[in-house]
Amino acid sequence: MRLCEKAILQGFLITSTDLLMGTHRITFLPHQRTIDVEDGERLLRAAMLGGVHINASCGGEGFCGKCRVLVEEGAVEAGVSEQLCAEDIEQGYRLACLATVREDATIRVPLESSIDRSVVAAQVQPRRTASIRQMDFEALKEQGLFSPPVEKAYLELPPPDAQNNMPDVTRLIECLKLQADEHKLELTMGVIRKLPKILRDSDFKVTINMVRPVRQDGKTIITDVQPGDTRAENYAIALDIGTTTIYAQLIDLISGATIAEAGDFNGQISYGEDVISRIIFAEKPGGLDTLQKAVVGTINKVLGALFTNSDIDKQYVSTITMAGNTTMTQLLLAIDPRYLRRAPYVPASTLYPPLDATALGLDLGEHVIALLFPVVSSYVGGDIVAGIMGTGLYREEPLTLFLDIGTNAEIVIGNKDWLACTACSAGPAFEGGGIEFGMRAARGAIEDISFDPASYEPMLLTIGDVRPKGICGSGLIATVAVMFEMGMINNRGKFNRDLPTARIRETGGVWEFVLVWAEQSAINRDITLSEIDVDNLIRAKGAVYSGCLTLLEEVGLGMEMVERIILAGGFGSYIDLEKAMTIGLLPEIDPERVIFVGNGSLMGARMSALTNRMRRDVVQVNKMMTNFELSETPSYMDHYVAAMFIPHTEIEKFPGVKARLQARETERQSTGN
Amino acid sequence: MRLCEKAILQGFLITSTDLLMGTHRITFLPHQRTIDVEDGERLLRAAMLGGVHINASCGGEGFCGKCRVLVEEGAVEAGVSEQLCAEDIEQGYRLACLATVREDATIRVPLESSIDRSVVAAQVQPRRTASIRQMDFEALKEQGLFSPPVEKAYLELPPPDAQNNMPDVTRLIECLKLQADEHKLELTMGVIRKLPKILRDSDFKVTINMVRPVRQDGKTIITDVQPGDTRAENYAIALDIGTTTIYAQLIDLISGATIAEAGDFNGQISYGEDVISRIIFAEKPGGLDTLQKAVVGTINKVLGALFTNSDIDKQYVSTITMAGNTTMTQLLLAIDPRYLRRAPYVPASTLYPPLDATALGLDLGEHVIALLFPVVSSYVGGDIVAGIMGTGLYREEPLTLFLDIGTNAEIVIGNKDWLACTACSAGPAFEGGGIEFGMRAARGAIEDISFDPASYEPMLLTIGDVRPKGICGSGLIATVAVMFEMGMINNRGKFNRDLPTARIRETGGVWEFVLVWAEQSAINRDITLSEIDVDNLIRAKGAVYSGCLTLLEEVGLGMEMVERIILAGGFGSYIDLEKAMTIGLLPEIDPERVIFVGNGSLMGARMSALTNRMRRDVVQVNKMMTNFELSETPSYMDHYVAAMFIPHTEIEKFPGVKARLQARETERQSTGN
Repeated sequence: MRLCEKAILQGFLITSTDLLMGTHRITFLPHQRTIDVEDGERLLRAAMLGGVHINASCGGEGFCGKCRVLVEEGAVEAGVSEQLCAEDIEQGYRLACLATVREDATIRVPLESSIDRSVVAAQVQPRRTASIRQMDFEALKEQGLFSPPVEKAYLELPPPDAQNNMPDVTRLIECLKLQADEHKLELTMGVIRKLPKILRDSDFKVTINMVRPVRQDGKTIITDVQPGDTRAENYAIALDIGTTTIYAQLIDLISGATIAEAGDFNGQISYGEDVISRIIFAEKPGGLDTLQKAVVGTINKVLGALFTNSDIDKQYVSTITMAGNTTMTQLLLAIDPRYLRRAPYVPASTLYPPLDATALGLDLGEHVIALLFPVVSSYVGGDIVAGIMGTGLYREEPLTLFLDIGTNAEIVIGNKDWLACTACSAGPAFEGGGIEFGMRAARGAIEDISFDPASYEPMLLTIGDVRPKGICGSGLIATVAVMFEMGMINNRGKFNRDLPTARIRETGGVWEFVLVWAEQSAINRDITLSEIDVDNLIRAKGAVYSGCLTLLEEVGLGMEMVERIILAGGFGSYIDLEKAMTIGLLPEIDPERVIFVGNGSLMGARMSALTNRMRRDVVQVNKMMTNFELSETPSYMDHYVAAMFIPHTEIEKFPGVKARLQARETERQSTGN
Repeated sequence: MRLCEKAILQGFLITSTDLLMGTHRITFLPHQRTIDVEDGERLLRAAMLGGVHINASCGGEGFCGKCRVLVEEGAVEAGVSEQLCAEDIEQGYRLACLATVREDATIRVPLESSIDRSVVAAQVQPRRTASIRQMDFEALKEQGLFSPPVEKAYLELPPPDAQNNMPDVTRLIECLKLQADEHKLELTMGVIRKLPKILRDSDFKVTINMVRPVRQDGKTIITDVQPGDTRAENYAIALDIGTTTIYAQLIDLISGATIAEAGDFNGQISYGEDVISRIIFAEKPGGLDTLQKAVVGTINKVLGALFTNSDIDKQYVSTITMAGNTTMTQLLLAIDPRYLRRAPYVPASTLYPPLDATALGLDLGEHVIALLFPVVSSYVGGDIVAGIMGTGLYREEPLTLFLDIGTNAEIVIGNKDWLACTACSAGPAFEGGGIEFGMRAARGAIEDISFDPASYEPMLLTIGDVRPKGICGSGLIATVAVMFEMGMINNRGKFNRDLPTARIRETGGVWEFVLVWAEQSAINRDITLSEIDVDNLIRAKGAVYSGCLTLLEEVGLGMEMVERIILAGGFGSYIDLEKAMTIGLLPEIDPERVIFVGNGSLMGARMSALTNRMRRDVVQVNKMMTNFELSETPSYMDHYVAAMFIPHTEIEKFPGVKARLQARETERQSTGN
């Protein structure tokens, strides 16, 4: 219409064809989605406008090469970088982030460039269901700790008359004092505004929401008033704001039951896959606002799914409890995260006051109070604090190592008396990043493997039992562990080039192992594991192991004193313990003493919705947690270098692995293989 | 452009003449303002769109007849009601609220239909400057009570390094504990958001705003952080939100001085002149929102004037303290006022929490905290509480009668030990309403009068010394008092029809006195005072007097026990004490024991900005004040009927008046007049 108006001002008659001048029609496959975009629009933005997801991990500057698309019809301008080889370019591959729309075109988004949403629909279930652990809800009840941060009360007020015409708010407070022994009360302006009408419409019989204070001497805030008796309907939402995924649970605050779950990919992924690239994006003009709205958009989608699935009226949601890492926390709150990635890595705050959910943009009632887990440091965030709280480790005796492994690994060690924490950069290997055919733990990812000891032909298991697309973090660990135990790679991660198999080959100066030939793969290319990939994995596992060791030494302890390990997070839930110990990611410990908790962040958020005690405890836990910066600890580098072997320079630290290697060697010698 | 777009859709070429089809050009005189309005628009709305003020007191339904305009050229449709006599209609007078625009026209807004803004530009000064009274600022300082609700502190924080990288908020709080012994601190999200950048931009040297709690054990809230040392600049705004006028003062919180003042008519006047007509308007769809925006619009204009006049940067304003009657308070806060005018007259709340000034729409910094005086009942509002606080009466021994007289009269009686209050409807007479030629105390209003004892020719004083337009409340009191003492009217308010003057005449069955002949008046009409006008004044003064008497009796006291009278409000400031006692508005009391305070509401707001003690005291005062409803007190009606004489049925209650009447009678008999 802009063009149209301009034409009128100039006194021209125009036709409908003129109106469309300057736009092109782009069709995306396999989605079969068509969108008209203006001439000169970036292809990646066109996809976004069309609701087509393309994995763009580097913020759109052509670095990561993940947004490869195939131009099947028509053409785009540019879109070429060193991330694409000559053969790719000849076949019509382009990087969507660098390509510009100049004519109608049909674009195919390859499987590896789009994220598979099927795995997020349901919550990730930890692999070892036997050892799942969380704070015991029944025990909470028995201890009298089942007291949600927002409680309801039903009141029948005496209606006003000429002899008693005190203000409505005074009437409500007097009644609460007399009927419910409630004191130190304050009302929000929202309640004051709606109280007069609701009182009169409902014959002075109302239900109120009371947000309890953190400290017992604090004020109770009345955040809502509803007509009649609605005590039976009181719900909370627990939310885990992950860098990759957002998970939510709808919790019945009367029974304590979780009545719906939903999840989705964090919409911020389009602007960068990890926290660092998000922070860089946030530093661009308007970037912070864009990221804030993106994550809120995803949260609102997830909330919508919860309400649809449960048939619960959102007006009866009283509170939302949330946990996320420090960057996710600051982005949600629209706090500039730039200082999080610059030495000396200072977050804006640890604790945040209770917030109005609607002020953040959340699609909830105006009365909903948002409670956020505090962060400890730039790299130990609210998700970790929530994990510590949700597992109850902070209330128990045994010396526990708590690990959440991803691109960053967060490490907490301690018990009810003290807590120390740190974070180290593991690199993206565990999440499939930096690995040529690496991918997330989604359909088509190789998750386990074994090899024929004679032919070295592999037997693969993929997630979803479909043709392989790539290899995920746990598959990578399994592959390297098995290859190592079978002598296919040595303790420095080099392939045994003497093995009688065509799968070990040199390509462009790099040795690699062909896991899947092109014709068996879902991506029509050979899926390989190169020595560079293995080296990336060794660096990742070395960083985590040496991080644990350094933190323990800083508090004067050794790895052997750890009484149990708690593994949190999506990746941690998929790990094969024995194989993780084989490559030296985890210290050797009785597997019975390892506990998988799955999404610790969500677990903590849920507990926080069930007991207000959490909010008091978390202030203490937050103060207790001593943060160590590995970059300031000289021994970390030594430990790291020593960990750059499979499983470790000092094989004595891994007696089990050593024994198995010796047994295999003995067998090999006896069979002459 | 709407027409234009439609034409395009229909495929027509259109000309500029077509575009104007359906609009008419209206010119307003004497403003010489011209505006194009759509066919069918109401004339009153056209004036509003054109920025032309027409006094419309009844909300636009033709009741009050105040919006008389003269159609000088062209014509309007309708606009006739019984408020206009046949002669008016013939001359071309119409009511703007009922008239519809159907063709081009020239409209003159008569002087009496527009409000004279000249008097509002400066604060109304009480007539008796000798007795002005307010809480003593120097005494406050001596008592250590000069402690504004928002204080500033300057901090030099140690910059973070690798060994000390605690979050910015933690760093700030630690520093406040160590350097300033400040505890129990909380930051707003606004401060958390801007803190990281400001700290780094200003070399970790910053000034913070601290909002002090009401109770000493409460939390101090940090609402702003500013780069460098800005302690020298800390300002507050004190605001009186009157039904008619809005007054503001800009206060330097370092010296305590008032550095600028400004005022304007409350923009809500266009929707009704008194609180009842505003409440009725607020009940219409969108009405509440319109009124809220109207008053905020005026406040923002007044704030703009303060900043322009003082050259102060508004970012250094820390707080705004406000007082208004109950309706003004609820309208500002967008709280439906409908129950204020319906029995049993229940306000929404007494106390309101501190508010974000920007959330109300005020054009101030995001950090500015708005503090509002609490109300007592539907008809005893925050302006009265502010007056009680500002005068210090609540801290002193003498039994004091506090009176704020307007359309409603608010009455407080008490001292430091107890306070009782009530309100009565005086009707609009004191503000010039219901009086045929009544007007506000503006330029051209007759404010004092005397008569030649032989010819009864008047000598007039008008405000601004210009040709008379009408008579204001204090002028009305003076006129009736003088006429009564001269025997021109009797104690029932009837003119002495035997007097030798043509000024006393009967028109349409009503007796009246011509104060100004048409040729001397500014409005080209005879300005008269009728017996109906006098009766209205008697009813008004009777209501106030009997209200005071009834309230005193309710607490077991008599009028003679009152030790002093405090007169607050614009009208109270203009009263001639002796004449007010002559007509029986005020009890006879030594004039030395009457104190004029002017705008008590503004005075209280100012005090509240200077000492946080006010906020603590006000909670107590609010609890202390016992509200009486006169409608529930049977004796009120008896007292009212007894007060329907000049000065009163029982002349013994007014010995001074009695003595003067007797002296005059004696003189008259001796001179034979």
